[in-house]
Amino acid sequence: MTGKATRKPHSVTQTALSPAAYSKELEDDLRQWRRDFHRNPELKFEEFRTAARIADHLDALGYEVRVGAQVMDSGAIFDLDAESVAKAYDEVRETTRSHERLDLMKGGLTGVVGDLRMGAEPGPTVALRVDMDALPIMEAATHMHRPARDGFSSAIDHRMHACGHDGHMAIGMGVAAVMARMKPTTRGNVRLIFQPGEEGACGGAAALVAKGVADDVDALLCVHLGLGVPTGEIVTRAEFLATSKYRVTLSGMPAHVTNDPQGGRNALLAAAAAAMAIHSIAPSSQGWFSVNVGVLHAGEAQGICPSYAMMELGFWTENDVVHEYVDNRIDEILDGVAMSWGVRSEKKLIGRAPATSQDADLAELVGAAAAGVTGVRNVIPTAECRAGEDAFCLIERVRERGKKGLYMLIGSDLAGGHHAQDFDFDEQSLVHGVAVVSEALTAILSREST
Amino acid sequence: MTGKATRKPHSVTQTALSPAAYSKELEDDLRQWRRDFHRNPELKFEEFRTAARIADHLDALGYEVRVGAQVMDSGAIFDLDAESVAKAYDEVRETTRSHERLDLMKGGLTGVVGDLRMGAEPGPTVALRVDMDALPIMEAATHMHRPARDGFSSAIDHRMHACGHDGHMAIGMGVAAVMARMKPTTRGNVRLIFQPGEEGACGGAAALVAKGVADDVDALLCVHLGLGVPTGEIVTRAEFLATSKYRVTLSGMPAHVTNDPQGGRNALLAAAAAAMAIHSIAPSSQGWFSVNVGVLHAGEAQGICPSYAMMELGFWTENDVVHEYVDNRIDEILDGVAMSWGVRSEKKLIGRAPATSQDADLAELVGAAAAGVTGVRNVIPTAECRAGEDAFCLIERVRERGKKGLYMLIGSDLAGGHHAQDFDFDEQSLVHGVAVVSEALTAILSREST
Amino acid sequence: MTGKATRKPHSVTQTALSPAAYSKELEDDLRQWRRDFHRNPELKFEEFRTAARIADHLDALGYEVRVGAQVMDSGAIFDLDAESVAKAYDEVRETTRSHERLDLMKGGLTGVVGDLRMGAEPGPTVALRVDMDALPIMEAATHMHRPARDGFSSAIDHRMHACGHDGHMAIGMGVAAVMARMKPTTRGNVRLIFQPGEEGACGGAAALVAKGVADDVDALLCVHLGLGVPTGEIVTRAEFLATSKYRVTLSGMPAHVTNDPQGGRNALLAAAAAAMAIHSIAPSSQGWFSVNVGVLHAGEAQGICPSYAMMELGFWTENDVVHEYVDNRIDEILDGVAMSWGVRSEKKLIGRAPATSQDADLAELVGAAAAGVTGVRNVIPTAECRAGEDAFCLIERVRERGKKGLYMLIGSDLAGGHHAQDFDFDEQSLVHGVAVVSEALTAILSREST
Amino acid sequence: MTGKATRKPHSVTQTALSPAAYSKELEDDLRQWRRDFHRNPELKFEEFRTAARIADHLDALGYEVRVGAQVMDSGAIFDLDAESVAKAYDEVRETTRSHERLDLMKGGLTGVVGDLRMGAEPGPTVALRVDMDALPIMEAATHMHRPARDGFSSAIDHRMHACGHDGHMAIGMGVAAVMARMKPTTRGNVRLIFQPGEEGACGGAAALVAKGVADDVDALLCVHLGLGVPTGEIVTRAEFLATSKYRVTLSGMPAHVTNDPQGGRNALLAAAAAAMAIHSIAPSSQGWFSVNVGVLHAGEAQGICPSYAMMELGFWTENDVVHEYVDNRIDEILDGVAMSWGVRSEKKLIGRAPATSQDADLAELVGAAAAGVTGVRNVIPTAECRAGEDAFCLIERVRERGKKGLYMLIGSDLAGGHHAQDFDFDEQSLVHGVAVVSEALTAILSREST
Repeated sequence: MTGKATRKPHSVTQTALSPAAYSKELEDDLRQWRRDFHRNPELKFEEFRTAARIADHLDALGYEVRVGAQVMDSGAIFDLDAESVAKAYDEVRETTRSHERLDLMKGGLTGVVGDLRMGAEPGPTVALRVDMDALPIMEAATHMHRPARDGFSSAIDHRMHACGHDGHMAIGMGVAAVMARMKPTTRGNVRLIFQPGEEGACGGAAALVAKGVADDVDALLCVHLGLGVPTGEIVTRAEFLATSKYRVTLSGMPAHVTNDPQGGRNALLAAAAAAMAIHSIAPSSQGWFSVNVGVLHAGEAQGICPSYAMMELGFWTENDVVHEYVDNRIDEILDGVAMSWGVRSEKKLIGRAPATSQDADLAELVGAAAAGVTGVRNVIPTAECRAGEDAFCLIERVRERGKKGLYMLIGSDLAGGHHAQDFDFDEQSLVHGVAVVSEALTAILSREST
Repeated sequence: MTGKATRKPHSVTQTALSPAAYSKELEDDLRQWRRDFHRNPELKFEEFRTAARIADHLDALGYEVRVGAQVMDSGAIFDLDAESVAKAYDEVRETTRSHERLDLMKGGLTGVVGDLRMGAEPGPTVALRVDMDALPIMEAATHMHRPARDGFSSAIDHRMHACGHDGHMAIGMGVAAVMARMKPTTRGNVRLIFQPGEEGACGGAAALVAKGVADDVDALLCVHLGLGVPTGEIVTRAEFLATSKYRVTLSGMPAHVTNDPQGGRNALLAAAAAAMAIHSIAPSSQGWFSVNVGVLHAGEAQGICPSYAMMELGFWTENDVVHEYVDNRIDEILDGVAMSWGVRSEKKLIGRAPATSQDADLAELVGAAAAGVTGVRNVIPTAECRAGEDAFCLIERVRERGKKGLYMLIGSDLAGGHHAQDFDFDEQSLVHGVAVVSEALTAILSREST
Repeated sequence: MTGKATRKPHSVTQTALSPAAYSKELEDDLRQWRRDFHRNPELKFEEFRTAARIADHLDALGYEVRVGAQVMDSGAIFDLDAESVAKAYDEVRETTRSHERLDLMKGGLTGVVGDLRMGAEPGPTVALRVDMDALPIMEAATHMHRPARDGFSSAIDHRMHACGHDGHMAIGMGVAAVMARMKPTTRGNVRLIFQPGEEGACGGAAALVAKGVADDVDALLCVHLGLGVPTGEIVTRAEFLATSKYRVTLSGMPAHVTNDPQGGRNALLAAAAAAMAIHSIAPSSQGWFSVNVGVLHAGEAQGICPSYAMMELGFWTENDVVHEYVDNRIDEILDGVAMSWGVRSEKKLIGRAPATSQDADLAELVGAAAAGVTGVRNVIPTAECRAGEDAFCLIERVRERGKKGLYMLIGSDLAGGHHAQDFDFDEQSLVHGVAVVSEALTAILSREST
Repeated sequence: MTGKATRKPHSVTQTALSPAAYSKELEDDLRQWRRDFHRNPELKFEEFRTAARIADHLDALGYEVRVGAQVMDSGAIFDLDAESVAKAYDEVRETTRSHERLDLMKGGLTGVVGDLRMGAEPGPTVALRVDMDALPIMEAATHMHRPARDGFSSAIDHRMHACGHDGHMAIGMGVAAVMARMKPTTRGNVRLIFQPGEEGACGGAAALVAKGVADDVDALLCVHLGLGVPTGEIVTRAEFLATSKYRVTLSGMPAHVTNDPQGGRNALLAAAAAAMAIHSIAPSSQGWFSVNVGVLHAGEAQGICPSYAMMELGFWTENDVVHEYVDNRIDEILDGVAMSWGVRSEKKLIGRAPATSQDADLAELVGAAAAGVTGVRNVIPTAECRAGEDAFCLIERVRERGKKGLYMLIGSDLAGGHHAQDFDFDEQSLVHGVAVVSEALTAILSREST
């Protein structure tokens, strides 16, 4: 991204073009923005450089920009690697002149929110939420992989935008630009929400919610590229699974296994029993679920009764009823296992995304908007995504207040699956995303009432 | 056994013969008595006929005889098959004229205690305890098996004296006869304790203790035949393992596993987890132990979440410290498992024998007495028996009150191991047993003080 | 049932009444037949009296009747309690004069098949399958329970028609009567299949299949009353779960747990580990399933290493792919557990019902037929039943041969759920069942080709 | 340690003093040597500096010195952290002038063997083995801890001589000095074996055995300080437990737990099941044992089926029969678990020490020698140590060849237990150790024949 590139689109005369038409003009910018993000991936809550780029862009477009502690409550973050975040912060700080916004982001508060008042008339607040974080994956270096071939691969080992968030941010920046051009001819407010820390449902969205970012939104759109939907197709309502993730620590008592085996309190066996029991939670006739003890570390040495165990586990359910059932069973199992083995169990929530409920009329409106966009061949009402998505923390909040929310998929042909080393998407879909979202936001703003 | 036979020994002139010499005269009686018991085996707490035979014998010898509720507290019995006991009681009642003693035995109180005041002088009370119950085993019918060959096999299918208790009772009756002849020349008191319900440590001894039968005993001897010791050898002090046995019931909640799997509380899985955990109790540096979940029954049908489970488990330890450690761990495990699986756990003690501690000086005295008996080739100070033995409930009580107790082994060549279908012992050892015990009891009575 | 009652309906002049109209005339008979069966419940493969009643009825209507070994292959039965079946057989034999058919049923082959050639013209063979067996349930005796109130409760303790098979058989007999009256005016063949041994998917259907009963059927209808569908509604296509059930025996090595604990091979712990592992089979993204180790019996005594364990388990899946996945995992688990614990594992199939696939066009035809029946308020295309149903063994066979099959639900208001002590259904639904099935069969016979 | 210090003792006139008297003269040197080693602890197979110090000392005393590949076979080492060893090697190399011996030690072969021909006459070869490695423990810094108070604490964080090997080496160097002074007056050969890599029974002794260092030894003595024996007491024969240690890796198949849970092969659950089963291996009536899965690491992320697990486990047994029993059970369990969960299991031996058998007559000779040493108050025949000790690899080899071996304890009052942060011993015991060993070696050399 360069300042020049972003300024170009809205330097042309602002005539009566449609949002979709404006979007088309951004095609080169979108690719450049996306590739810049792709080259500079930052892990969850370490998106300092990324946030600065976005804030500058929104500034230039005339948005009122808030960042860091202005839009996030650090207490609502479930899980954060403080040491790694601090290190990333220090590195960015050393190479940056202006520290005002960076200071607000200290401790991993890397969210950015931009607001734009449209026209003179009051009206609803419409919002788009996109996510920002990259993954700890080593990007493929083969010539088969376009980012490698075209020279925009990740500049950092073991970090990669392998889920499309680089594209989501590009779409967000594009929508910001298009809506800025729509300002004279419409009303109400547009809000762009760039959310850090999405992977693992670790609390990026929850921190925004806790600070009230969703409280005055009348309609919230969220987007994801790909997920099995090919270029040219749009899913207006994507259902995700509810999920919770826990880190469980079991503290027992060490003991020499020959001198005093009876004195030990075996945290490793307690964890083993817990893992077995958790994986044998009975199915529910009320909906499918999957539970997984994904990580287990326990014990000190061959000759010592293991006094320590740590488990990371998650579960994914089709609905809230099943979610609560599994959650309760895990609590019972852990309490009982702790008692059986004489260990102390502590459970910490490290990730959460609620079950999904969305608004059918908003989906219809978006579908109608999408249907008119050039390049969109097919509009699909619903799709099921077998994953959690913490955007639903924001949607949940909006809907709690009686307003509307929706999660859309922007079809994009993929090379390599999500979270794979050779993940890549079809950049053609970026324009589709900007066009569909901008048309939809504009349509919402134009309605009598939301 | 016939009245004639028992009367014969003490009808001869009571001259200065030694207890060992009197014992020798009983050789034929001992064999007859033993074979009569062998032909008529009765299970634990069903020894109604057996008890009557013994009481008649003690009567005839001039002993003061107490039976049933006079010597046992039914509340102290750990485990008893009430239905089977009632059936056995009714059968014996139908074929018996005198019901006075039988009435006292109702409900399985089949113990018999005989007391004899020796001479005119006061003195210590010395006691012998033997056990009475047979086993639910089908006796071998082969010609290789002497009881079959010689026509004194069990008259009842699936009941057999396969542990030597028939011999123990013959020894007890012989000792009663010998001590009756020693009456004029010694002092103090002799007590014969015939204990029902020994197998499984199910509470025969505990019920006698609870009624105070051991409270005024100054020296208590207990005997067992065989246990690997050959004919002609005597072990003066046999160490046994402490043991406890429990019946555990787990009550959950049934549920159709397709319509409502989430509604069930799985007692079968709870029992499985408990069994695994109990078998993985860490070893102790303070002594060897073995724990076993020996029986598990759970569940109703393939399509129903199992709402019920029953486990029978036992453990055997080298000492009380380890016994308490294992006992506590079992409690912790069951409490925890019940919590983990949402079931209710109930634990019932169905057997107990304490760890063994005995008196070295009593062992020495017995050893000296044994050494002088014709036919005794070897006196061994100690042996370890890998089993529990509830005689130690009585010994424990005696020693709690500052008096002395001892458990001896009377060597006997065996055909077939204990509890085997072809178990048999060398009847020659019966005389050894009577002689060694009588000599020892006489020696104790003759000492200045106990 | 009385001979008079059955003869009455078809003694009236056979004019141009519709099947539904004939059905209406049978209302009293249907109630009587059902109540007779309800009073005389017989367990799976013990339906000797029941089968005789049905055969007599079909005889009287002019059907060609085959029973027992003529229509069932005993080798295809998965699980049968030979002792109980033999006892039931002997009892019925003693009270019966004619033994010709009973001889054919020996060993539990209690199926009855009746064939009727319709009119003079050839045509397709259409069939109805109903099930015959009762359950080992103690019927409620309360006045709230209509069978008790109206005096047609089960005459036998712990046996009850608690699933509606008494109604199914009444419907079958009614359809036989109606179709007999339709004989002059239609063509082709009608087959009534009365199947024993449905509960537990234990092989009643499989034994009919193995003997070829389904081989020449062009269209097969199966019916069930109730299952949550109220009186007046008909479900034309009911989807069931695929199921398999196994009895697993684990054989280890006994050992005294104090003398030789190391010599044992613990079948109880092996079963416990297997149960835990089987219940922790990972979910499948390809469909819901439920697996259950419903019964576990293991071990001999507290002091013996358990050398024996028996488990009964079942699983229910949404489709065949998931069925095969779970089946394979169970095999892997059992093989591994046997190796880990040094025991021998044997697995016996004791129940099976395949996944369901049915014919949409047949469902449409039935729906149209049902819609015209008086009293049918609502025709529902599909419903999901969370259970296995071995009628699909017959449907599977018919469809393998390129012909058509369908499983329908006849709505019936219930008092008490299926398999409950107070189960009862609305007898009004019997006429609906007869009418809908007869109309459908007649319609199929009237079509150009099937 | 300084060169001056070591040279002093044997520069005095070599008169007819006894070994014990020579030992007494070394008191200051022993303390200095021990403290130098204590300040410079080196982990197993990283004892490069330590070995150089010892080799220089033996050189100066006239011993023929062999090191590294001359005395160790690297293929016999069970477990070695190659990266850490290489780093330690490079560090020492940088600060050392002479590289000849260091080159021989490359890869962790840090053993040192010194041989001295005694007098002119041939005679037996007598040997002393001591161990060299420190532990990864952070030494206590409190004033209560004498090394801290007196300024000879470990110079390196997280490395500490916390088991007394610093004292063992000082004793070895002292014995070397004393025996050098005994050279003129005795015959045969003396061998000092300084063994690296004792902790964890990781293979230091096995590597010496594999190179033949024990093959021509007629009598081998091994020593340990402390272990609960107070200053002034000597145990002539210490029994240890046999031990084996394994690293087990389980390799499964990763899978997204929502998209493809059925595609995974769960190594974490396999490890959990294995740990439970290994801890539930039945006890043995043939001897006590303890088994421990001490370390378990498994899994990648909350949302991925764990494809990897690593366990480190060990077991300690009273004898070889039980050792083989437990070893076989572990193999069975791992094979079965791998099959049950569809994972691949690999087991690597990372530590071993055999069961102990020693020579009673050698113990008597050592006892007699010890009894005459000033300061030795008590000579105890045997003691049981609840640990493994790989010196028995060397003793085993010596005894296989028909010669004699013995493991002695040199009593030493301790501050802090072995392997504790505040471990320290009474340096007074160093003289006892040198005196007792030297007297014993001299006595053996003086006997007619060994």
